[in-house]
Amino acid sequence: MPEPQSPIRPGEVAVELPPQTDAGLYFIGTIHTPWSRREDCPRQGSADGPICTITLDERWRQALTGLGEQKRVQVLYWMNRARRDLVLQTPFGRPTRGTFALRSPLRPNPIASSIVELVAVDGLDVKVRGLDCLDGTPLLDLKPEHGAHQG
Amino acid sequence: MPEPQSPIRPGEVAVELPPQTDAGLYFIGTIHTPWSRREDCPRQGSADGPICTITLDERWRQALTGLGEQKRVQVLYWMNRARRDLVLQTPFGRPTRGTFALRSPLRPNPIASSIVELVAVDGLDVKVRGLDCLDGTPLLDLKPEHGAHQG
Repeated sequence: MPEPQSPIRPGEVAVELPPQTDAGLYFIGTIHTPWSRREDCPRQGSADGPICTITLDERWRQALTGLGEQKRVQVLYWMNRARRDLVLQTPFGRPTRGTFALRSPLRPNPIASSIVELVAVDGLDVKVRGLDCLDGTPLLDLKPEHGAHQG
Repeated sequence: MPEPQSPIRPGEVAVELPPQTDAGLYFIGTIHTPWSRREDCPRQGSADGPICTITLDERWRQALTGLGEQKRVQVLYWMNRARRDLVLQTPFGRPTRGTFALRSPLRPNPIASSIVELVAVDGLDVKVRGLDCLDGTPLLDLKPEHGAHQG
């Protein structure tokens, strides 16, 4: 499903990716948001943003037991349109930096982590506020918000 | 490398995992800590814990450019010894709950996220405080600490 790769900008450097991956991910559900184009997404999710619905696959129904008691939840998702081979990047209007010094979606493992406010759990639907991702984004995980030293 | 699966405890439920994975991860480095057994790991990383070294693979050297300016860094890693099929879990001494209502390492995609204090970047070695994982844990990502609504 990768889209045509974004072009390389001045200062950017791509490396050859390893010949194979080392572990596999299961997509466990789908995130529904109002934004179907990257340029429509808010730069960062907000607690006064729209309610978005995360729909889990049937297989994981029982794993939601007790989630409704949480106020804030960490959502991990897969940024499946991002190229993975850049080591130096030049974000628009900013200096060139290393990929690990940026929160850009373009990274070797394009996993995003957001903390959201839980609105309701209704069957397989988890309603939250504070997301900023594209409609249709694959879900990787939900967990209660971390303590002071976990992100 | 999965170890023999941990036994099922009273109240726990496992599901059949999907026949195949949906995306692949690259291990981009290795986390070195003083703890080689699960029972030796601290329950949660601490800013006064030992300095641990995250060693990146050579391929990603340039991606560290500028990371040294950060004070706090989000580390994503793969908990490669965890079984992935539990939907209900009974943590020791606690009631049974859904996997998504727990921060247990046993989850469909065993990705951990920690916020650590950056001590130094030296070539391919990133020295940090605040980790609590096993020695030899595969690294997935490093990013600057998030804003208020990203975790």
